[in-house]
Parts: sequence; C-alpha cells; structure tokens
Amino acid sequence: MIGMKRLSRKEAAVQAKALVARMSAHECVEQLNYDAPGIERLGIPPYNYWNEGLHGVARAGTATVFPQAIGMAASFDPDLLHSVAEVIATEGRAKYNSSVQLGDRDIYKGLTYWSPNLNIYRDPRWGRGQETYGEDPYLTSRMGVAFIRGLQGEGKYLKLAAAAKHFAVHSGPEAIRHGFDARISLQELYRTYLPAFKAAVKEADVESVMTAYNSLNGVPCSVNAELINHILRQEWGFQGHVVTDAWALEDVYGDHTYASDAQETMVLAIRAGVNLCTGRCSGATADALAAGQLGEEEVREALEPVFRTRVRLGMFADDCPYDSIGIDQCDTEDHRDLSMHMAQETFVLLHNSGILPLDTNAYGSVCVVGPLADSRSALLGNYFGTPTHSTTILQGMESALKGIMPVRYAQGCSLTGNHARSELAHEDEGESEALAMAAASDLVVAVMGMDSSIEGEQGDAGNSMGAGDRGQLGLPGRQEHLLRALLDVGKPVVLLLVGGGGFALHGLEDHANMAAIMQIWYPGGQGGRAVAGVLLGETSPSGKLPITVYRTHAGLPSFQQYELGNRTYRFLDRLPLYPFGYGLTYSQTKVDRPSVVLSGGSRRISVGVPIRNEGDYPVSEVVQIYLAHHESGLSVPNWNLVAFTRVDLSPDEQVVADLEIGPEAFMEFDSQGKMVVDGDFFTLYAGISQPDARSVELLGQAPWSVEVNFATGGVRILKPGPAAIAGKTE
Amino acid sequence: MIGMKRLSRKEAAVQAKALVARMSAHECVEQLNYDAPGIERLGIPPYNYWNEGLHGVARAGTATVFPQAIGMAASFDPDLLHSVAEVIATEGRAKYNSSVQLGDRDIYKGLTYWSPNLNIYRDPRWGRGQETYGEDPYLTSRMGVAFIRGLQGEGKYLKLAAAAKHFAVHSGPEAIRHGFDARISLQELYRTYLPAFKAAVKEADVESVMTAYNSLNGVPCSVNAELINHILRQEWGFQGHVVTDAWALEDVYGDHTYASDAQETMVLAIRAGVNLCTGRCSGATADALAAGQLGEEEVREALEPVFRTRVRLGMFADDCPYDSIGIDQCDTEDHRDLSMHMAQETFVLLHNSGILPLDTNAYGSVCVVGPLADSRSALLGNYFGTPTHSTTILQGMESALKGIMPVRYAQGCSLTGNHARSELAHEDEGESEALAMAAASDLVVAVMGMDSSIEGEQGDAGNSMGAGDRGQLGLPGRQEHLLRALLDVGKPVVLLLVGGGGFALHGLEDHANMAAIMQIWYPGGQGGRAVAGVLLGETSPSGKLPITVYRTHAGLPSFQQYELGNRTYRFLDRLPLYPFGYGLTYSQTKVDRPSVVLSGGSRRISVGVPIRNEGDYPVSEVVQIYLAHHESGLSVPNWNLVAFTRVDLSPDEQVVADLEIGPEAFMEFDSQGKMVVDGDFFTLYAGISQPDARSVELLGQAPWSVEVNFATGGVRILKPGPAAIAGKTE
Repeated sequence: MIGMKRLSRKEAAVQAKALVARMSAHECVEQLNYDAPGIERLGIPPYNYWNEGLHGVARAGTATVFPQAIGMAASFDPDLLHSVAEVIATEGRAKYNSSVQLGDRDIYKGLTYWSPNLNIYRDPRWGRGQETYGEDPYLTSRMGVAFIRGLQGEGKYLKLAAAAKHFAVHSGPEAIRHGFDARISLQELYRTYLPAFKAAVKEADVESVMTAYNSLNGVPCSVNAELINHILRQEWGFQGHVVTDAWALEDVYGDHTYASDAQETMVLAIRAGVNLCTGRCSGATADALAAGQLGEEEVREALEPVFRTRVRLGMFADDCPYDSIGIDQCDTEDHRDLSMHMAQETFVLLHNSGILPLDTNAYGSVCVVGPLADSRSALLGNYFGTPTHSTTILQGMESALKGIMPVRYAQGCSLTGNHARSELAHEDEGESEALAMAAASDLVVAVMGMDSSIEGEQGDAGNSMGAGDRGQLGLPGRQEHLLRALLDVGKPVVLLLVGGGGFALHGLEDHANMAAIMQIWYPGGQGGRAVAGVLLGETSPSGKLPITVYRTHAGLPSFQQYELGNRTYRFLDRLPLYPFGYGLTYSQTKVDRPSVVLSGGSRRISVGVPIRNEGDYPVSEVVQIYLAHHESGLSVPNWNLVAFTRVDLSPDEQVVADLEIGPEAFMEFDSQGKMVVDGDFFTLYAGISQPDARSVELLGQAPWSVEVNFATGGVRILKPGPAAIAGKTE
Repeated sequence: MIGMKRLSRKEAAVQAKALVARMSAHECVEQLNYDAPGIERLGIPPYNYWNEGLHGVARAGTATVFPQAIGMAASFDPDLLHSVAEVIATEGRAKYNSSVQLGDRDIYKGLTYWSPNLNIYRDPRWGRGQETYGEDPYLTSRMGVAFIRGLQGEGKYLKLAAAAKHFAVHSGPEAIRHGFDARISLQELYRTYLPAFKAAVKEADVESVMTAYNSLNGVPCSVNAELINHILRQEWGFQGHVVTDAWALEDVYGDHTYASDAQETMVLAIRAGVNLCTGRCSGATADALAAGQLGEEEVREALEPVFRTRVRLGMFADDCPYDSIGIDQCDTEDHRDLSMHMAQETFVLLHNSGILPLDTNAYGSVCVVGPLADSRSALLGNYFGTPTHSTTILQGMESALKGIMPVRYAQGCSLTGNHARSELAHEDEGESEALAMAAASDLVVAVMGMDSSIEGEQGDAGNSMGAGDRGQLGLPGRQEHLLRALLDVGKPVVLLLVGGGGFALHGLEDHANMAAIMQIWYPGGQGGRAVAGVLLGETSPSGKLPITVYRTHAGLPSFQQYELGNRTYRFLDRLPLYPFGYGLTYSQTKVDRPSVVLSGGSRRISVGVPIRNEGDYPVSEVVQIYLAHHESGLSVPNWNLVAFTRVDLSPDEQVVADLEIGPEAFMEFDSQGKMVVDGDFFTLYAGISQPDARSVELLGQAPWSVEVNFATGGVRILKPGPAAIAGKTE
C-alpha cells in the first residue's frame, strides 16, 4: 500500500468541494461540529471527529499502550517513535473498521486523532507536561514530525489524520486555562513555542491543528486570526483543517469574555480560520448565517478542509487498503513487544553506584516498595487505552525473579499521604511493614512518584487532586519520608521514579544507600516487564532527559510567566539536579575528537563524532550537539540542541556518528519573530550531554567544543571541558 | 507448639485479675477502649484491639488474600477452611511481630481479629452477605467453628483471638443499620440466628464476641443484657470478652435513642456485659464512675476478660512460641497455593453444556469480556489485604493459554452502566468492540457481576454506590444488555459470575449459546490462576451454593422483615433459579442406596452413603443430608441441612461416605426458643443436593429418602425422587 502515490491535495480539494456543494446551508452548519450527523442522500455517514492516540489508541478500549509521550521523548529516537505511531495507526484503523461494521460511529471511534501534543514543557509544575516531548523546541520538532509521519502513513490515503495541538503557547496553569492569557514576546513565540508546529506543517504535512484554550497576547487562540490565518496558513502553507479544543469556543465568550456571545464567537472563529468546532456550535453558526453576519460561502469554505481530510482518509473511496485491517491487528504480541522495547529506551538512569544491572547471585531476596510498585495507573499516564497483559513493576519483578529469589512487597505509604487504610491509623501507618520487609531483604526497589491522579489535565475525570498541576517538585505525600526511612534501614535502594516530570530529591540522591535512581516515566502496558528486563541487565537503559530536573521549585518564575526566565536548559541560570540530555547507560562510552566539514557559504556543517564503548556492556548511546552563539544579542543565554542521533555500540566498538547542522541553527529570531543572521561566531558542543558543569560532573566527561567562525571560515576544536551557564550561581 | 497444653482459663483469669488490680480506676477506664494506651509502670504496652482477617489478614498491607467468606462457605469444606484460618493466624503473628519490633502498635496490627462474620445471609439483597457463610445455620456453624479453631490454634497460647460477629440478628439494611430494630420471634432467633454463635462458643471456645449495631426486639444489641449476659454467658458459658461494633455505643443514644447520652449508654453496656468499647467511651465511663452510676469494681470486672484475652495470647509471657514467626511467614508461595486451592473449591458450576473443561484443541482463540475480566477488585470482595502475585481472570487466561491460542479482551461495559469512557458517548459505547472481538473469536468467556463498589457495607470507603445493599438481583448496569448481545453473536459463551450473591439471569441461562455458567464469588488474590485452572480442566469445580439463587427479587418479603418468609431454602415456597447446596462437577457422581444405623434410644443416626464417580474425571463431591420433620408444628416448612461431607472420587471409584446426625437435629425450637422433642417421624434425604424438584431437574438425580420413625424404630429407604416444597407454585 505504501507504493501507491499519495492522493494529491488538489484532487482531495476537488472531491471535497463537490461534496460540500451538494449540501444545503443548514447541512453545512451541522457538519462544522465535531459530532457531525450523516447525510444519507449524499452517502455521508455520521462521523465523530474526536479520537485520541497520544501513546496508543486511547479511550477506545483494548489497545497497545505505549509509554507516555514524555517518556518516548526521552528515547531521543524519532525512528522508533515513527514505528510506534505506525502501530497506533494500524490499531486505530482496526478499531475503526470493526466499529463501522457494527454501525458504531461514536466518539473515540473515528480516524481523526487529536495527537500529538507539541506544546513546550515550559514549567516543571505543568500537569500536562507528560503529554509533550519535553522542554526543547528542536527535540519536540523531531519527535513530532516522526510521530505525525507514522500516524499519517505514506500511502494513497492518510492512515490516520493527526492533529498537532494545542496551537499555541499552551502549558498551564490548568486551573485557569479556559480564561488564561499567555503573554509572550514574538521572539520567544517563534523561537520556543512555534518551531514544532512549523515542523509538523512543513515537514510532516500534518492534516489538522487544534487550537489552545488560552489567549495569546490578548486574543483567544481559537479565534486568533494572526495565529491561524496568518502564521499557520500564510506563513507555513498549512492546508489541513483547524479544530478547536473541546468547548474552547464556549470559553471565548464565557471565560475570556472576548466576544459577547456564541454567535459573535462563531463569526470570529470562522473568520480566523477555524474549520471544525468541538462543542455545541451549530445553533450559533446558524444564527450568524441567518443574521447575515456570516455568508453562506464563508461557511462552505470553512467546511471544505474538513471534508478534504475525510477524502484524504479514503472514507469515500472503495480502494482504501486500510479498510481490510481487521481487529486481529489490534493489540498483537508484536505491538506489545514494540511497546516494551520503546519503554526500555525511555528509562533514564540518573544514578548508578554500580549496582545495576543487578547481579542476581549477589542477593538472596528483594523487597519492592512504594505506592506505585503494584499500580496499574503508574503504567499509563493520561490519555491511555486499555492494555492487555498489563504488568506492574511488582509483577514484572515477580515474573523475572521467579525461582531465583523471593520478591517481597509492601506499599509503604499511599500516593498522596492520605491514610492508605484507615483514618483511624497514624499517618505513616504503612511504613513499619515496609521497613520490616526491607530489613529482611538484601535489596530494596522503591517505586515512587506520581500518577494521573496527581498530575494531569484540568477537568479530567481521572484527576482527583485539584487541577492537575504540581505545587512542588518533591515526591508527593509521605513518599519522601518513607524513602528516608528505607535508606536508613541499611540495604541498598534502587529508586524508580514514576511520573511525567522530574523530582527534587532534596539531597537523598547522595545518601550512601541510594544505589541507583532511574526515571521510568509512565512506561506503558508492558512497563513491569520492561523495568525488570533493564534492572536484570537484559538490556541497558538508554534514555536521556527531555526536561531539566530542578533542585527545587524555589526560585522558579511565576507559573503564569511564559517568558522562560531561568527555566529549561537553554535559559537556566543555575545548576540543575539532573540536566536536560543527561542519562547513564550500563557501559562507559567515550567521545573522541570530532571531525568537522563546513559547506562553503551555506552555513551547513557536518560533524563526525567518534564514539567508543569502553565498558563491557552493549549499549545504545545518544550523541548530542548543542550550539552556543557568541555574538548575537538575540540568542538564548546558554545553548540550543541542534542535532542528535542514536548509535548502537557493542563492547569495545567505535563508530563515528554523522550529524548535520543546517543554516537555520545559526540564525536567531528578532523581536518581531523574524529569523535573521546575527553574527558569525559559534561553538558547537559535541558529546553525549550538554556542556554544563553538572552534566560533566555526572558523566565524568565533557563534550568537545568546536569553535566555528563563518566570517573567517575558521574551525577550532578544543579538548572537552565544561562550559559556563548563564547564571552566576555555578 | 501444639504439644503445649492450653493455658487454663483459670490461670489466665488469675493473671488478668492481678494486672487489673494494679491499675488505678482511671487506667481501667482507659483500658476499656479499643485503642488502649500503654501503662509503662505495669509493663503494659499500648494496644489497639481492632484487626480484621475475614479471608486473610486485612487492611494491614501485604497478605495472602483467600477467597471471600461466602465463597469459602461454598467449599462445604471446614477442614480446608481450618487450614486457611491457620495460615491467616500465622500471617497475623508474622505481621504483629514485625510491627511490635518497630514499636508500631497501631490499628490493624494487633492479635485480636474481628472475624468471622457468623450472621445469616437472610436476604439476597444484603451487601454484607458476602462476609458470611451463607443462609444456613448448620453450614454457618460448621464453617465458623472450623475458622475460629484455625485462627485460635491449639497451643498453650491463642494464636490469634477470634471474634464472632455481629451478635446478633444482623443482616441489613445497611443504610439504616445504626438505628434499626430487628424484630423476630424467639423461635426464629434460636433456630436461625443463634446456632452459629452458640457453636462458636461451645465448640470452638471463641475468645471474643462482637455486638451488632441493630436493636433486637427493641433493645440495642450493644446494651442487650438478655443477649450478652443471659444467652451468651449464662446459657452458653462464654468466658471471653465482648466488644462493641465500631461506634455502636454512640448509636445507642444517637440513633436508637435508647439511652439519653453516652454516660447512660456506658452504664447500660457494662451492666449488659460489654467488656470493650470500640468508639470514644472513656470520658463517659469516667463520668459515670465519678457520678456513682458505675462502681469501680464493676469497671474492673468488665476489664478483666479483656486482659484475660491478652494473657491468653501470650502478650505478657516470654514463652510464646508464636513470637518467633518472622515476616517471611507472611505471603509465602505455599500460602498462595492454598488460596488457589481454596478458590477452586469455591467455584460453583451452575450450568455446563459439556463445554467445560475446555478442549483447547477445539478453539482457535478466546475472547474474555466484561467489566470484571481484568479487575483486581473482582478478586477481593470486602475486608481484604494486599495480595502479591495478584492475577485477574484475564491475566490467568492469558498466562494459561500463552502459546496455545490468542486471548482477546474487551471490557464491553462498565460495572454499573455509567459511561466507561466519556459522558459524550452513547450508553453502550463499549459493546461494539466486545461484539467484534467475540465475532472474531471461537469462544467467549464473559466475566460479570459485582465488586465491593456495588455490594458492601454502609460507610465503607470502598463502597461508592449508596449503602451497599442491592436493589435488584440481576446483573448491574448494562451488563445484561451486553450479555444478551454477546449470546446473539453466535459463539459459545462461558459466563463467570463475580459477587457475594447470586444473580437472577432472566432466562438467559436457557439461551442456546450459554455454554456454561460458573459462580466464582470473589476468588482471592490467585483468582485468575484458579479460574484458568478450572476452565482448562486441571481440576474440577466442586463448590455448592451456600445460598439460594432466586429467579427474581419480586415476591421477596420486605428487606426489613427478619422472619424468613419465603427466603432461604428452609422456607422457600417456590422453585429457585439455583438451589442451596447445588453445584455440578466435571463428572457424574451417583448416589446409591444408603445404609442406616439407629443408635437405640439416643436419636443418633449413622448414615452410610455409597457414591460412585460414573464419569471420567476425578472430582470432589459433597454428600449432603437434609432432614424434614413430619409431625411437628414447630419445624421449618421444608427441611434442614443436618450433615455433609466431602469425598474425593477417581473415575469409577465408589466410596461410602459416613455421616452422623445427632439428637439435636431431631428437635425443634418452641415459641420461647427452647429446644424440645416434638414428634418422632422424619425423612432424611441423602444425596448430593436438596430433594427439591429444581435440584433434581438440574442434577438429573434425586437424593434417597430415609424415613425414620423413632416411635417404632422403623426405617424405610425410598428410591430417589423429588420432595415437595412448602409452596404451591411448584
């Protein structure tokens, strides 16, 4: 099916226009809503546009549940993410076909998926940061493009239609999202918040873009003509349809009070370039039409892109090869294996005394402790499907160690510090059990952190803990208390951190008994299997942090401030606990002196980075290149990730990783958001981390520095050493 | 340790008296509360009397979780229940020892267990019926005695102290339990509600009895001198301590308004024979003492039995062998295996077209469907611990069929019919997925019924659905709708019913595609493993219904009526859907002509029941004897279970089961509750079921009838045939 040439946008436009032309004005109005009725006369079945597939087909029953998006970002592996998205598309098609066969065209059963989330994880407190590909525009772009391409496929018809969301500048606070105004300079808009959307349009030809709830500089995103008509369509040439976030148009008059009522809102939305309304908009649209505030032609033009999408999905064709994908293609063993493989690439090993991989001969028994150890929700994050063969961390360990050593389990405490068992009990009621079991064991695996009851989305039924943002960055509830007590038992502790964000560990990372720390995010349905495999050394962890892990929330700018301040590695003015891009493996890899080739005139650079596996463990390593600008007043304070690639290395193997950095990397955004050349002198840092002192301290090696001066054509390669960050606290 | 002779009650009384004598009056008052402070001067540590172990150590973290009590009753296997209780005691000691070592003496960490629940499952709507051993006084007595003996052990010290609850006549409605007055004749009190408590005292020497929330004939049970001082202590010779149900004394003045305040209530309670208050009673007791309403000697006398219990538990001894039980004795593989074995004995096969055991060669794939298929709470019921190696039904099937055939899964619907995924979806949103998967499979295993969010206890944190009683007896929510649709797909359906009660199936049991129905109750932590083992024929199900499964709730007496009316098999005036005592195995066993020996004069009868396994499957069968009284106006309308025994039978094997019926079985209770001889002519029904027409229809055989006339000494043995029940609707 891949061999079939993509149906041209022009052909799709012709078909869509013809279909829409045969509709009455009233029918057009009804079709502008996400739950569109059928038009039998025209052979158009009812269709609900709302479906979700952030990390697997979500909310539609059984499906392969992959690791949460933030974890997949930690893989720094767009190719694998592309494979994951292909599987999601296969399962989405399988479910669609079987639903249609039974005449079920309900929500979560269509082919238009409202994924991925390309927002920037601007602030560590954001509950939906877990849905993103992290804090970096470049990484987010690479992952977003890979995901969208995988979801949409390459055949004549779109496999699924992806929607890049939330456009734009959306990252909390959740509690006030429906009326919040994100204020931001055009420079920051273009260099931080828009690149991933631009890449989605220009590189992945994303079929749909979803608006954000918030306003941007005073104008609600769902009626924001500058964003939709100007930037998205005119600047970038977007040709798909724009859908509003759920009930976002109701927010325009209800929360933003930007319009006086639904009718005015619909006029603004359609004029701004919106094509599909997720809410109850038909009445207001009809009224606007009747009152002459909207012309019938405007309505038809708004609708056409929506039908182009359905045409491109092959919904009105009889030669769509995806129509034959049966329900057997959903949740297959291969898909689950892929989920496990992806999970193992997402794990970020933050600290290792040498205890990992575990030598099972060295221990007689292990105790698995923590409120997330046997938790199924710990596998899922938010926006999830129903996994089969679901394996918790405890179950994974039990299964892997069966017949090898006893695995004990104690919950230790509840997730949030409320009484796990009874309000009549003392606050740390579960602790003595955990401590007794730890004392009786040779090794403790503590599984702590968050689940979607703590971090998540405003209004999510699964989110019972306020609005879903985090008030602080430590372990919630009594978990830190439990962890301290466990460390004091005297047995080595392997700490697995569950959640969509990092954790301020308040010095516990330096405790003598803290043998290892690994961030496992929300690892998906096969999470327990994946964790056990990594702990026991079947494979090495190889994820890198797609976010900065801060030492504390103290000193962060206001959560409502959208200028970055000292947030994210590009701006950070102090050393973090664990830096963006950082992660250990079970081996030692060493980067040697890079080779550099400048393409004359075009500001394109090829860098060859020799990397050797100096340990005795086969690993996969992520070579990263960061770029610092020395002459521009427009650049970020520190540096930007500009290239990365994954390489597999057997013990003693050396390979040369080839990375390309194109001219845009050497440009800056001015105060109007225009990309400009603003200086000639740069340093490229080539290694397996950022060049900051903390990364260097943790890894025991620094990237090589490559000084490039385009004015002179000069290149100077310097021995590894830490680079200074913007702040003075270093 | 079993070799050590039990510490005499006299010796325990001396020690307790000496301890209490050294306390001040104020200290005595404080010690009368369930969360008693320590008295350092006397070497008495703080102690919380509240612990739970209904089907495994509960609410205290990791423990082996056995099947819910009602399921264990279905085993009709007191010996196995005794083993289960021994394990609970071992785990309780292990947890106690490790808690004490860390100075943690909180709730759920002591040695006084508020189990078993010996109430009669009088009405199928009762949410806590799951905690009981069913509707029959004799079965409840046998199971209760076995459980208590197992829990308390036979050594010098009590292994644990059991508490028989709730004394007395307690079985809903949950919503009004705190102020409800159960009105009942003395005849019914003695013949239905008290026998299991009497057996607990007289046969198992239960250490503690817990009062009920309700009133009995106008007097709250917790201040009911007739019940406690007269029946329990004087009639039966109870020597342990009486504890009130949680906050039951607050109910006496707050809900029952039987006393004017807490102070008066405490006076009534202590005078009625209460020894330990579960609530906040110290202030009121002190006030009563200060006001001269209670004498200090009364308070000391009330307290002594409580300290006798602690002495008997070896808490003040240094030679208690249980003190050396380590945490390693909790949740062992052996214990989990016992849980699985017990689970398999609890399953009641209600219908089998011959599909079970499943021939895995006959099917290419199986689809597991239903809201409880992959539910962990479906394993637990209420009052549960935290299992390790927890296996849902789906997980059990996945594991057992790995490499044999694909196992698909669809939830199909939510438990209660609320939208599983979104309020925006149609009501049966999950159905099409389930039907598509069923259509793609060769066999459907549907897992339906209830969990503790539907049936349970008033005020239980886990019970979100009102008060915990059932409004109707069908499958909750949209489950029946789903089941009908699944049956219509055309594939054979094996229905597994989860819950503490039976289900009115509204004719679905007769559907051509209903291949098998099995009631699995709440099967415990190993439930999925147990189910898969039984479905695949590793072992045959062998449970028998400890309750009547009614065809409908229509026609039942008011839930508030405590006279039985047409409830329970002893009184039922119509044919049930599935009768008490009924259950199939994978074989056919046939009962042959029994032999009968009367012991001259004493009204003691020995019955030898020959039983042959005529099928080709090894099974365990429950031989049952029911007794009908032909001459007494005091007898129940139908018959009573008077003896049962389990026998193991290889294919073609015949054994003779020997059962004894003692003189009390041939006596009746008069209107004053006195046991009297009232007639000489009886029929004993000896077989593998009751003699009712429905049992005979379902099993294809009737019990043998043994007519006994003590007046003549005559015995007549009649060929099998159904006996008429009391009603006329047959």
